[in-house]
Amino acid sequence: MRGVILQAPGDVRVVDRPDPVIEKPTDAIIRVTAACICGSDLWPYRGADPVHEKPMGHEYVGVVDEIGSDVHSVAVGDVVVGSFVASDNTCEICEAGFQSRCIHQVMMGSIGTQAEKARIPLADGTLVIVPGTPTPAQARSLLAASDVLGTGWFAAVAAEAGPGKTVAVVGDGAVGLMGVLAAKQLGAGRIIAMSRHADRQALARRFGATDIVEERGKAGIAAIKDLTAGYGAHSTIEAVGTQESMAQAMGVTRAGGHIGFVGLAHDVQIDGRELFVKTVSMLGGLAPVRRFLPELINLIMTDQIDPGVVFDMTLPLEEAAEGYRAMDERRAIKVLLETQR
Amino acid sequence: MRGVILQAPGDVRVVDRPDPVIEKPTDAIIRVTAACICGSDLWPYRGADPVHEKPMGHEYVGVVDEIGSDVHSVAVGDVVVGSFVASDNTCEICEAGFQSRCIHQVMMGSIGTQAEKARIPLADGTLVIVPGTPTPAQARSLLAASDVLGTGWFAAVAAEAGPGKTVAVVGDGAVGLMGVLAAKQLGAGRIIAMSRHADRQALARRFGATDIVEERGKAGIAAIKDLTAGYGAHSTIEAVGTQESMAQAMGVTRAGGHIGFVGLAHDVQIDGRELFVKTVSMLGGLAPVRRFLPELINLIMTDQIDPGVVFDMTLPLEEAAEGYRAMDERRAIKVLLETQR
Repeated sequence: MRGVILQAPGDVRVVDRPDPVIEKPTDAIIRVTAACICGSDLWPYRGADPVHEKPMGHEYVGVVDEIGSDVHSVAVGDVVVGSFVASDNTCEICEAGFQSRCIHQVMMGSIGTQAEKARIPLADGTLVIVPGTPTPAQARSLLAASDVLGTGWFAAVAAEAGPGKTVAVVGDGAVGLMGVLAAKQLGAGRIIAMSRHADRQALARRFGATDIVEERGKAGIAAIKDLTAGYGAHSTIEAVGTQESMAQAMGVTRAGGHIGFVGLAHDVQIDGRELFVKTVSMLGGLAPVRRFLPELINLIMTDQIDPGVVFDMTLPLEEAAEGYRAMDERRAIKVLLETQR
Repeated sequence: MRGVILQAPGDVRVVDRPDPVIEKPTDAIIRVTAACICGSDLWPYRGADPVHEKPMGHEYVGVVDEIGSDVHSVAVGDVVVGSFVASDNTCEICEAGFQSRCIHQVMMGSIGTQAEKARIPLADGTLVIVPGTPTPAQARSLLAASDVLGTGWFAAVAAEAGPGKTVAVVGDGAVGLMGVLAAKQLGAGRIIAMSRHADRQALARRFGATDIVEERGKAGIAAIKDLTAGYGAHSTIEAVGTQESMAQAMGVTRAGGHIGFVGLAHDVQIDGRELFVKTVSMLGGLAPVRRFLPELINLIMTDQIDPGVVFDMTLPLEEAAEGYRAMDERRAIKVLLETQR
């Protein structure tokens, strides 16, 4: 099959890779109907993480092609979505809703879903069946659910976005924009998107942002304080993962507020005394997307949300390198890869 | 009046201080019936915080002696307890239960309650009336409620201790021990106290600890994993405030768990990637003791809890310096100062 590998930082190639096979009885093989490029794929692309001939991609929507002898909840031909972390969905951590930290977790990024097929470990726990046949627009939204929507949703839940809450969103990438959508769905009355880009501002407003703040740093904090009678946001979504973005998130959140952070942290240090003084709740990390998938699939298949519009560039798998360049140069918010010829 | 000052690190003196007076119409003056020495007082005592001629003490139980013209909810003669942070109890932050971060907060440590009298700012918001006349044992417990009990309680609430939860407590000082008591009251089934001292272990067991772990570091983490089928604690109380204790807390908490941290952080750095990978909730800081005071006073006055037994040394105010030495040398867990002659 054809699949994307990152040969070295900046060097994306589409190559012949061996077709995946059932390795364990709990595996399934899916035909990937669409995959995409994640903001977190840019970290190794830019050389921030060591990398060599790495298969790329961890988001996917597909059709079950083959199942292992111990797979019981999905069948060949089912349209399925799964999280970027395969999980058994039965351990105590999964049962508590933190499937991304399943004691048997397998990172789909180690398998690489920017490919025509993919092996899905722990298929019963990982895959969720999509009822009916998705429209093309719904299929794009389902792909978003696999990571960015689920991650933004987790961030909004971790930030306790809800009725009566003012939510600030730091980061206008796909995850930040999904956080806006999630905050809106969760009932937040006021949603402040921090963004300097007109196209992203427009999407943020479409997803439910009521206010846009272009300033950053101290000016950004002051702007959000101004919008909240001096108190700051109740709920803040951090969707970048840098020291600057974490400081921004802590700065705009009121005492007693909540920060949901899902930007993959790079060189971030949090000062213990500052966190002590702030008295804010923090929860973040790899999002347990699996927890939210049934609800998200329902919202998508009943056309209540359309997260798929976050894909503003679509390319055939063979042109993946251009997709990486476009996202790296911020010409695209998120790139969908058509994996079937 | 007589009162304690810290002249310089290690130099505790009991001196004549001016009697407090009503400075604002919202002030009250109380006769302090008992005060005490806090673990956090040891930071400046040991030179970790700069200090010069600082009035000491922020915990108190007392009787109202005088009220300002705008004080309406307490009257002269009332037995009262307040938090170590004076708060208006009406701003949005207070209403959300974070009175320790009231927008008009006054730290009682800046006033100094290790004295015969004390001015209480924002008396209506700060002071809670004790119904009836406390017994000597109840009076000691009420004094504990002013900080250590309220702080341990907040830590347990922040850690989401409750039925079905395994709670780990890092730190066997007064606050950690109060955290054990709080976890028990909140319904936790298993409470693991980390302690190496026989006297503190005994108190921890009295307050509800079901297990004691003496090991620290990796061995301490392994011991708690062993007690929890490899998962770690659901809820962890961090009551020390050092890099080591925070690492211990993060190490013993399961994915999806909660850390309530109330040790005043000194030189603590939290690695953003580590926090990301751990996927634990963190909430801490100065405890909003005022939130819990009505409930704590009720539990104390109905003899359902006896946190006052945490005071294992009682001295007259004039001997405060010996109290500081005893706590510094860990000869005493917590020292009560009798402030009335």
